[in-house]
Parts: sequence; structure tokens; C-alpha cells
Amino acid sequence: MKKLINHVDTVLAESLQGFAAAHADIVTLDPGLQFVRRRTLKPGKVALISGGGSGHEPLHTGFIGHGMLDAACPGQVFTSPTPDQMLAAAQEVDTGAGVLFIVKNYSGDMMNFQMAAEMLDRENDTVIINDDVAVENSTYTTGRRGVAGTLLVERIVGAAAERGEGLADLKALGDAINKSTASMGVALTSCTVPAAGSPTFQIGAEEMEMGVGIHGEPGRRRVKLTSAEEIAAELTGAVLKDLSLKRGQDVFLLVNGFGGTPLMELYVMVNAANKVLAGAGVRAVRHLTGSYVTSLEMAGCSITVCAADPLMLALWDAPLHTAALRWGM
Amino acid sequence: MKKLINHVDTVLAESLQGFAAAHADIVTLDPGLQFVRRRTLKPGKVALISGGGSGHEPLHTGFIGHGMLDAACPGQVFTSPTPDQMLAAAQEVDTGAGVLFIVKNYSGDMMNFQMAAEMLDRENDTVIINDDVAVENSTYTTGRRGVAGTLLVERIVGAAAERGEGLADLKALGDAINKSTASMGVALTSCTVPAAGSPTFQIGAEEMEMGVGIHGEPGRRRVKLTSAEEIAAELTGAVLKDLSLKRGQDVFLLVNGFGGTPLMELYVMVNAANKVLAGAGVRAVRHLTGSYVTSLEMAGCSITVCAADPLMLALWDAPLHTAALRWGM
Repeated sequence: MKKLINHVDTVLAESLQGFAAAHADIVTLDPGLQFVRRRTLKPGKVALISGGGSGHEPLHTGFIGHGMLDAACPGQVFTSPTPDQMLAAAQEVDTGAGVLFIVKNYSGDMMNFQMAAEMLDRENDTVIINDDVAVENSTYTTGRRGVAGTLLVERIVGAAAERGEGLADLKALGDAINKSTASMGVALTSCTVPAAGSPTFQIGAEEMEMGVGIHGEPGRRRVKLTSAEEIAAELTGAVLKDLSLKRGQDVFLLVNGFGGTPLMELYVMVNAANKVLAGAGVRAVRHLTGSYVTSLEMAGCSITVCAADPLMLALWDAPLHTAALRWGM
Repeated sequence: MKKLINHVDTVLAESLQGFAAAHADIVTLDPGLQFVRRRTLKPGKVALISGGGSGHEPLHTGFIGHGMLDAACPGQVFTSPTPDQMLAAAQEVDTGAGVLFIVKNYSGDMMNFQMAAEMLDRENDTVIINDDVAVENSTYTTGRRGVAGTLLVERIVGAAAERGEGLADLKALGDAINKSTASMGVALTSCTVPAAGSPTFQIGAEEMEMGVGIHGEPGRRRVKLTSAEEIAAELTGAVLKDLSLKRGQDVFLLVNGFGGTPLMELYVMVNAANKVLAGAGVRAVRHLTGSYVTSLEMAGCSITVCAADPLMLALWDAPLHTAALRWGM
């Protein structure tokens, strides 16, 4: 295992400490490492909290800040955070307007966030993300998995929360974005969880896993590696089929690297995906390209399409200040 | 070779087309693919032009925009762009205040940028970047190599150009930042140049290349992989030795991934580097952490330290709008 670490037991803690030091203008790390929170809270704003296993950085800690999350609870690598973490985060960042949890649909996350929501004696609700169209059930999931589309929900709902929207409206907005969002990914290589020490899965020198999850869990099928255009056609095609968009629809296009794929290749995928979108009469009016919802050092990418309306575009463009995404401030 | 590409001959063109489409609000791609330029030029501003081999994305195209570069000339992967490209870019983006070329010290880039500078019948000057302290001469270089520190020069000089500084002052500022900046990197794996089809170098399962260049060229020595703390101590130590900073000095700290290293590990390196800086009585007042000056999918990272003065900090913080770095607008 070739990693820039000191010890498998301390990777998460040291990474969080490095993160908190580098972004001390934006975030504060809980001394018990239970959560990372926004340094300055905004009284009267609904608190947005997400979290999940680590190893997907910059998701979720990198999305804490003005216009996005108030706190994130990092579990160990690919392991759900505990209800205690979520409860502590909620108690810390709720300023009286309630708490909205944004949860990727994985069994562990769902169970623990639900437990925290029940234990929390403050107004709260939950948006569940299940944008991955690859498979209906999976290794760690009942129903569809929540993947890169989570970023879009966190951002757009985060901007609405910043504007002062109430809990019920934010919950409805989050659910609506989730329904308008679909993703699918492909892996060219595996990743290695530090504590495991060996690759999560084996894959041949000419194979790819089509429909892979963000923990390296199986997708639709293992096939021979093909061209970027064929891969983009399959991923974008599956996503468009799920969304059933009308011609003329404006969309967000997120081409997301899983950690080990160079930006140069991601832009080749953008170019290929744009052709598929054009063929469907759909136009990407906002692009995000980069490694944002990762699976450690896995090579591969996912394509996310989200149907955009003028409100969502305005919220997307509103001022944002996080470690991983920033504009307008 | 596992890459998301269509054909090795079209990777660069398709990647540039995807990039230009995704960032059409910021950049325009020359129809002949000679250069990428800022979409809206600012009359009377000195034009900043950089470039070099591709495969280091987001460097340089990702740094075009308000507060940074006016144009970048992409060569094929790890291959210098031609003088014709640089000349065409300069003629396109010069608005009358002259042209400043920012060039990484590699023999091919140096020769071709120098030729372009001589051919250009407009006022121009060149800042040469040679921040890599690992080795004095190298595979493609006479003298020290130019690596991740280039980003700092492009940003800070870019902000000064935006403020209306003249060519001579920008040249002096660029040279001063280069002198105040030092970098060193380590590779855990090789990368594969698409046209080559096989890894640039072989490295054992427990080895690392200490002092590697951003094309995978050899560094100081090949040794057994050690801990993040030991690696950070060697890289940061070498950089600090070169800079001979006084205690109490404020610095920029750039922990730069080479493409295949997860953000989680880069923050472990930030945490380790911060301890080394603290031991030297030096404090990082601005952090940048991520894969910004890459070597395709190579695993590893570099550490760059730059001595900061109040003017440089103010320029760093000024509004910036590029594909890869953005704040304040």
C-alpha cells in the first residue's frame, strides 16, 4: 500500500487537523474530532448537516461554509459516522431555526442519521440522496445509492438556507433537486482503504467496472475498457433515460473524478458528454469538472446531470465560500 | 494503459475543447488550438502568457482569467509548445501595454519562449521559474526546474497586472517571488504518457522517488517509502534550507498533489508540514492544498513555501476568476 500517511489509525485525525489548519478562516474542528463546523454561524438560519464515511474528500468537509453546509460528520474511511457525532454537530450548529440533514442513501448512514434525528430534541428533517442510476440495490444500499449529485443538493439548498428559507421549504427543495438529478460512474482501477491495506476489488488490465459505486462496490457489469466517447454515451445515456428530460431543457453537468483520474481526461469526458447532451437536445448551462466526490485514489469518473430551473441557477450562482468550491466572495 | 481517452492523437484537442466548453464564460479556445485566451481582454493591461507541455492540468489553462493569466499555450503531453503558438497568443492578447511571458525552466520551453520573444515586435519580457530545490540539473533542464511555485508567480503577478502595474515592475515582482519560493516533490508511482503507452519509470512496490520532477524525471534518490512525517520533514526541510527564512516569517504553503494522490493524504501532509514550519518559527498564513501542478496520474506531492510580504498577501487575496482558482468574484 503506497500512501502518504503515518499510521492507518491516525490518517483521519491528521487529515482533519491539516484541513482545519489550512481552512481556519472557514471552519473549526471539534476538539473530539466528532465534526467539522462552520467557524461563524448565522443566527436564524436553518443548519445544514451532512456527513458519511471519509475517503470521498472534498465531500463533505470541503463543502462547509457560507452558501453550503454548516457542519459535516466524518466517519472512518468508507464507514458511517455515529449518531453521537451527528447529534453533537446538530446541537453545536443549530441556531434555533432547525436542522436539515442531507444523507447519502447507504444503510449505515441512513440508520445512524435517523437515530440522531430521533434523539435530537430540536426541529429537524432529512433529505435523502439517491441519484445513482446504475443499480437498484447494492452492497451497502437498499434502493439507489447517493453519489456525486449530493454536491448539487448541498450547494443549492445551502444557498437557499443562506437566503433565510425555512426548514420545510428547504426539505422540499432538496427532495426536488434529488429527483431532478441522476448520476452514473465507471471505475478503471480499484482503491485501497488504508485499514484494509489491499485493493477493494481486483480488475483486469483491460477491464472497467461500469456503474461502480463510490466505495468501489460493483455496478452493472465488468467489461472491456472502451473509448471515452463510448463510456460517456453509456453513462450520459443512462442518466438521461432516468431523467426523461424534454428537448430544450437546461442542465447542470458535473463530470466528477474518483481521485486517480487526471483533469485532462475529465475534460475529454466533458467534451464527449456534451455531444451526447446535444444529441438529446439538452444543454449544459453550468459545468463543474473535477474530483469532488472521490473514492480515494480510484481511477474513473461519474457523470451527473441535473435539470436546472432559473431559481436553481440563481441559487447555484449565489456567493459561496468553502474550502473546495468558492465564488462571489 | 487505462485512460479515459478516445485516441492518443486526439487527447489534447478533445480535452481543450471540453475545457473551453465548460469554461466558456472565462476563456476562448483558438480555432487552431494554438492557445487558450481570456475571453475578455482588458485594454492597457500587460498581457501575461504562460504555457508548457500538457499533462500538468489545471496548470496553465486552468489559471487563465481575471487576476491571473491572459493566455496559455498547451504543448502535447510533456512537450513544449512551439514558438508559433506563443507568438500567436501574444499577438492576440497584447492590448498595447506589452507582454510578460512566465516560463518554467525546462530546456524546450526556454528555447521556444525565447524564440517567440525575439520574433515578437512588441514590448515583452520573461520571468523564468526555477523553484525546485531537488536537483541542480535534470533530464530536461539546465539549472533548477520550474514546478508548482509557478502557480504563485502567475497568481501574484497576475493580480498586480490587473491593478495596472507596468511591464518592468511586473517582471521585477515575478523575479522576486521566484527567488522567495522553493519546492520539492516526491513520487510514489509513475505516470503514463498517452503516446508512450507505458509508465515513464519503474518503481518498486515499497519505493519512492525523492525529489521527483513533474514529468516523472529522477530526483535526488530512490528510497524506501517512509511515513508522511518523515517525507514532509525532508521536503519542507530542503525547501526551508534553500530559503533561509528568519523566524517569524509569514509564508504561503502549497501542498500540491501530482494527480493520483487523494486529498485526504494531502491534508495529512499539510498537518505534517505545518509542524516542520512551526519548528522553524515560520507560519503559513495562506494555504493552498490540492492537485494544481500535476504529472498526469502520478501519485505523490510537492511542498512549496514562499516567503510572503504584505503586498504579496494583498495581491493573493485580490479578486480572482479562473477555472481552477476563484474567489472574490
